[in-house]
Amino acid sequence: MAEKQFVTQIADIEQDFSQWYTDVILKTEMVDYGPVKGTMVIRPYGYGVWELIQKELDGRFKETGHLNAYFPMLIPESYLRKEAEHVEGFAPEVAWVTHGGNEELAERLVVRPTSETIICEMYHRWVQSYRDLPLLYNQWCNVVRWEKSTRPFLRTSEFLWQEGHTVHATEEEAKAETLRMLEVYREFAENVLAIPVFCGRKSEKEKFAGAEATYSIEAMMKDGKALQAGTSHYLSDHFSKAFDIQFLDKDGQLKYCSQTSWGVSTRLIGGIVMVHGDARGLVMPPKVAPIQVVILPIAPHKEGVTQKAEELFALLKKAGIRVKLDDRDASPGWKFNEWEMKGVPVRLEVGPKDIEKNQVVLARRDNFEKLFVPMENLEQTVAALLEQIQTNMLEKARAHKQAHTVSAQDWQAFTEAIENECFVYALWCGERACEDAIKEETGATARNTSIEEQTVEGVCVHCGKKARYNFYFAKAY
Amino acid sequence: MAEKQFVTQIADIEQDFSQWYTDVILKTEMVDYGPVKGTMVIRPYGYGVWELIQKELDGRFKETGHLNAYFPMLIPESYLRKEAEHVEGFAPEVAWVTHGGNEELAERLVVRPTSETIICEMYHRWVQSYRDLPLLYNQWCNVVRWEKSTRPFLRTSEFLWQEGHTVHATEEEAKAETLRMLEVYREFAENVLAIPVFCGRKSEKEKFAGAEATYSIEAMMKDGKALQAGTSHYLSDHFSKAFDIQFLDKDGQLKYCSQTSWGVSTRLIGGIVMVHGDARGLVMPPKVAPIQVVILPIAPHKEGVTQKAEELFALLKKAGIRVKLDDRDASPGWKFNEWEMKGVPVRLEVGPKDIEKNQVVLARRDNFEKLFVPMENLEQTVAALLEQIQTNMLEKARAHKQAHTVSAQDWQAFTEAIENECFVYALWCGERACEDAIKEETGATARNTSIEEQTVEGVCVHCGKKARYNFYFAKAY
Repeated sequence: MAEKQFVTQIADIEQDFSQWYTDVILKTEMVDYGPVKGTMVIRPYGYGVWELIQKELDGRFKETGHLNAYFPMLIPESYLRKEAEHVEGFAPEVAWVTHGGNEELAERLVVRPTSETIICEMYHRWVQSYRDLPLLYNQWCNVVRWEKSTRPFLRTSEFLWQEGHTVHATEEEAKAETLRMLEVYREFAENVLAIPVFCGRKSEKEKFAGAEATYSIEAMMKDGKALQAGTSHYLSDHFSKAFDIQFLDKDGQLKYCSQTSWGVSTRLIGGIVMVHGDARGLVMPPKVAPIQVVILPIAPHKEGVTQKAEELFALLKKAGIRVKLDDRDASPGWKFNEWEMKGVPVRLEVGPKDIEKNQVVLARRDNFEKLFVPMENLEQTVAALLEQIQTNMLEKARAHKQAHTVSAQDWQAFTEAIENECFVYALWCGERACEDAIKEETGATARNTSIEEQTVEGVCVHCGKKARYNFYFAKAY
Repeated sequence: MAEKQFVTQIADIEQDFSQWYTDVILKTEMVDYGPVKGTMVIRPYGYGVWELIQKELDGRFKETGHLNAYFPMLIPESYLRKEAEHVEGFAPEVAWVTHGGNEELAERLVVRPTSETIICEMYHRWVQSYRDLPLLYNQWCNVVRWEKSTRPFLRTSEFLWQEGHTVHATEEEAKAETLRMLEVYREFAENVLAIPVFCGRKSEKEKFAGAEATYSIEAMMKDGKALQAGTSHYLSDHFSKAFDIQFLDKDGQLKYCSQTSWGVSTRLIGGIVMVHGDARGLVMPPKVAPIQVVILPIAPHKEGVTQKAEELFALLKKAGIRVKLDDRDASPGWKFNEWEMKGVPVRLEVGPKDIEKNQVVLARRDNFEKLFVPMENLEQTVAALLEQIQTNMLEKARAHKQAHTVSAQDWQAFTEAIENECFVYALWCGERACEDAIKEETGATARNTSIEEQTVEGVCVHCGKKARYNFYFAKAY
């Protein structure tokens, strides 16, 4: 019963960000806990965000020449074992199917934690000649990883994602594809989710199990922690050797293919919540808001109000705006709060006085501004306002990101910055032992470094050995 | 290598329909066999059809007030056991997850064969008051059923589908929803897939495990066999009692909800192949054709041909037509055959002579007609032609359906009609034993009967007892 839910408060965002997150996603009915530990139910208000993410990304994948396909979810154990690093990385966290109906299976099956192995088996069958290349495929699907510590959207036993898997004739082509898709993710994160990101290469420790190099976009949450929001892997020939994907090249030689894979998941929804949310709840970027405008008739029993509200609803809907008319029998104050908590970008109020003045009230969720605007050309006014909100949200997030990124010249500055909920940019040796020690001492992990090769002067901020990179560090989800 | 594949013939559709089907779906690269027995890989040309099916259906679901959500795939065994008929129907064909990582699970998990149980558990948590009703949710996902005998698209261990699950305050509302969604399926099958269907209620034997009544759309394949193409179940309170989904009604009484569920799957793709295909391969209805028009430049080395082909490609693409320009270095004859096999509705040829005459050649896949049309307003000509093809394909399929549906007055007429690859409409007693005997003797199963209650006079075509219905019988996939 909605009325009951409403009076329940959400935790103070300043005092307890973690509880605030949980309260917000549950109380806005984005998500619920599933019956099996670590699983989530994505409710319509959360799934609506995912549908918009899918639509935006899918269009970008297709524009860059990719086709969607679907590969089976159940993978023979022997496939997982073909690439040594891959099995080592994933075997501890997979779900095993051992029985079909009443019979025990001859070979155990893995519920896909990612699909490199089964897709490579098919590529092995399909690729013969240079004329078959490149293969630029993507799939939208569910994956399962048996995680110990879980949080809805951020880390769940099952989640939804897309995984691109491409095959190329040359290393150069595969490297270019890896970076092209990283750039697609960056552009999408900034222009659609209004989330500015750090775009770069991961450390050896943090790269994908089986990859030659992993690139990521890293987003900064309101609490200064990093969320790895998307990854693009250059696989080189690791999998094509394990699965024997060879092609006859123009020069008559049999060669191993070079590959990439890349993915983003429902985790992005958690990122949207933690980048844009505020004390009152969600703040949805207009481009992925399932509801962009909610219309509240004020004093709907007064003559003409309901009719006008319905008229405006029809007008905005026709203009392609995702609009909802809230004509439920509840107080305006109660409704204001509910839609604020749900982060709807624009609240449109229309009452008898507004009708008299031939105006409506528009209330912005991002900055709480109230605008009195004429009814004429309302659809254009609203569309422009949604654009403004989108831009403003990105700028706000950019300002936060900048204000919380610190270049640290020494270890004290490094530790202080991490304590102050910042990302740290510092010279680093790149050694695994040093990376582990930094995590041990500060809780921060290596996020990423610039894509281009660097020549740096100076010593590692932590261990004092010769530095190899400037690297971003932060605590992470 | 494409050239090699092409020379491989497909089986004669008249001689061996079954082999023809397998050849067509594999050689057009719609699908491939997955590594685990009974699984399929949906390749881009097949997945493209599924994407169009999804888009068309999803729009219809949303227009009728439904929202998408996502529920976890792994279901505790105890949930499956809550509804007696349901577990009996599904337990023999589920995949069991018994281990997560290296640990054995305390309770086995079922990979969803359908999601009534887990969704009802969530509805139990979410529904309290009449104000929470109706819940009109749908999900697009994969399901697993451990089938013994499988064929790509038609029956596979894993398939993709949508499953709608709704909760209502009254039986009347739930019944109306069941039939509303059946009608959505019928309209979609006819207007989008160009597949006319028999729309009606299933027998007791064939109904969904746990339903009060199951309704289906049944399509007739070219070999006279039935394909159950979609089902809509009236669940009554069977699951709401098993999962305790009660709501406080306006009258202050706690009441059990009434529910429905309904689904269609990737099986529809197999239906499209078997309803419309011909000796040369696929014939795709324009509305679900991943490629609606293929442009073949004739003598592309001649001046202006490539340029004109690219111009026409851009023109049609801009008009929203799914068009492909085939500029590969291969003979026109080879390309003709390939695109014919792939069932592309319209082939557009443009060569030096056409350019001289300011015309192009349009070849229809459905009836092999060749049209010489002016370049002026080509996008309108092509759009109109696609409409015509769509209509013609539905009419053709309707004529086939009518010509192969027989009213049988006696048992001899019944058996002859089944032998002649027809659907039979006959008086039937409705008894399970009689249904089993009919199947034993003829291979035919009860497909469905009219939605409305019938009063019939006469005796059962098979056993001679008093008839209860006029029922459709056919062999089925």
